[in-house]
Amino acid sequence: MTSASLNTLLGADLYFKCEHLQKVGAFKARGASNAVLQVPDGTEIVATHSSGNHGAALAWAAAQQGLRCTVVMPENAPEVKKSAVAAYGAEIVFCEPTLQAREATLQAVVQSSGAHVIPPFDDARIIAGQGTVAQEIVGQCRELGFAPDLIVAPVGGGGLLAGVGLAVSALAPDIKVLGAEPAGADDAQRSFRSGVRVTEQQPQTMADGLRTTLGERNFVLIRRYVQDVVTVSEAAIAEALALLWRRTKQFVEPSAAVGLAAVMAHPARFRNKRAVIVLTGGNMDIAAAASLVAGRS
Amino acid sequence: MTSASLNTLLGADLYFKCEHLQKVGAFKARGASNAVLQVPDGTEIVATHSSGNHGAALAWAAAQQGLRCTVVMPENAPEVKKSAVAAYGAEIVFCEPTLQAREATLQAVVQSSGAHVIPPFDDARIIAGQGTVAQEIVGQCRELGFAPDLIVAPVGGGGLLAGVGLAVSALAPDIKVLGAEPAGADDAQRSFRSGVRVTEQQPQTMADGLRTTLGERNFVLIRRYVQDVVTVSEAAIAEALALLWRRTKQFVEPSAAVGLAAVMAHPARFRNKRAVIVLTGGNMDIAAAASLVAGRS
Repeated sequence: MTSASLNTLLGADLYFKCEHLQKVGAFKARGASNAVLQVPDGTEIVATHSSGNHGAALAWAAAQQGLRCTVVMPENAPEVKKSAVAAYGAEIVFCEPTLQAREATLQAVVQSSGAHVIPPFDDARIIAGQGTVAQEIVGQCRELGFAPDLIVAPVGGGGLLAGVGLAVSALAPDIKVLGAEPAGADDAQRSFRSGVRVTEQQPQTMADGLRTTLGERNFVLIRRYVQDVVTVSEAAIAEALALLWRRTKQFVEPSAAVGLAAVMAHPARFRNKRAVIVLTGGNMDIAAAASLVAGRS
Repeated sequence: MTSASLNTLLGADLYFKCEHLQKVGAFKARGASNAVLQVPDGTEIVATHSSGNHGAALAWAAAQQGLRCTVVMPENAPEVKKSAVAAYGAEIVFCEPTLQAREATLQAVVQSSGAHVIPPFDDARIIAGQGTVAQEIVGQCRELGFAPDLIVAPVGGGGLLAGVGLAVSALAPDIKVLGAEPAGADDAQRSFRSGVRVTEQQPQTMADGLRTTLGERNFVLIRRYVQDVVTVSEAAIAEALALLWRRTKQFVEPSAAVGLAAVMAHPARFRNKRAVIVLTGGNMDIAAAASLVAGRS
């Protein structure tokens, strides 16, 4: 999708890749599909722990292949996430809301059921699956007769950004790939710039999909195939979210606005450039997101 | 656009025509464009009175043709509507918020400036322009290899519904055209069923674009070319709005949800049918609309 009014406002030529229109409402369907298509022979059940879109995506992808699925979720996960996982037919096992409890509970599920674990981002199959979005971007731009200067992808655990970097390096190495993350969860930028992966942080951001810390495989690929990682303020994320709702009429979640926020926060990098912005998903607490947008133009 | 989950939920095969993605964020750009392309020779300025999308659409269409535009607006019109009209370069003349004041002020504008008036719906050029949406629907469905059983369009003043009925009768008379309106503004249904145009009502509906009373030309065409007009409750509109935001991720306004609300309120008319629903626009007070949606699934 494109928006003439946003292009005029921002002095760039922007193309939005609409992953909120993907199955399960997020790019996560790509990695989960790719992973369930490659489970070891004889696998009957897959499992993961998730408080967000990966759980719903795995539940959906498993159902497509006739596999059973168990998702370990913290008791305090948003109702909308719990009901999405349940609606796709997965079994939910609740646990206390700590990483330790999630991992221990998942381990117990594996031991009792023999489930095959599919992690949310630090996994080659997941990274390759998320990278298919870049394959589509390159192909769709070619159909329109151009190659973009830049592709911008938000970064949390790094599955999407690593996959995009990898795919672009193979398919169209002249295109620059830029990561974008909230300043309040800037582990990817610090890891990228220092060369040492940051493994802990206290994230402070409305972009709930990007609070995760960068994975190990993801870090290696991002260092190799991504040009830079930029950060954006919470105010810029809210402003970008308001512009996306009002101007493009696309009902995306706060995490999905981080790419456009990067264009607004770093205008010199985008001036007169053709940039593809990945809109990552559209699943959210509507009242909370609307309160961020109301009153902004 | 289509949604597999909505089709499963509602037992119908629904196609959404996305007029919220139209220029100015509403189908009104069609009628306004058609009208400004047919103004009398020598016209330098066009004018209308509007508290809604028609003012913005006329401002935009006039600017495209290098014409000046004056929009008479009630002082209490929403800020978002005032700023849209101003952003497209039109002059705004404020008046008191009564129909008499609006018409008297417009008359004064015409006398002082010689402006050519383009009314919002009771006008052959506007009706024909809005009807181009049906021309596109028929053509796009043919490209996909089918003809829809039904096209559903919301009805306020009746520009859209009359235009769709007229176009379908000429292009694909086997397709049924159904009007949908809020039960709290049911003048079109009462007019349609009694054969006598209702000219006054006290509208009570969140669908602010549909509070207008049916126009005269519109009434005649709707009686001739539309199969029926159905009404929907406010609860059904809110439920449909929530489904559109959550399932299709399209950020449409309450008036645009009235077509889907009709599918939900009258399931027997749609069971296993192929129906095209016109999503009419996406301009709204976000906080008010979000409060209708929050808490609904």
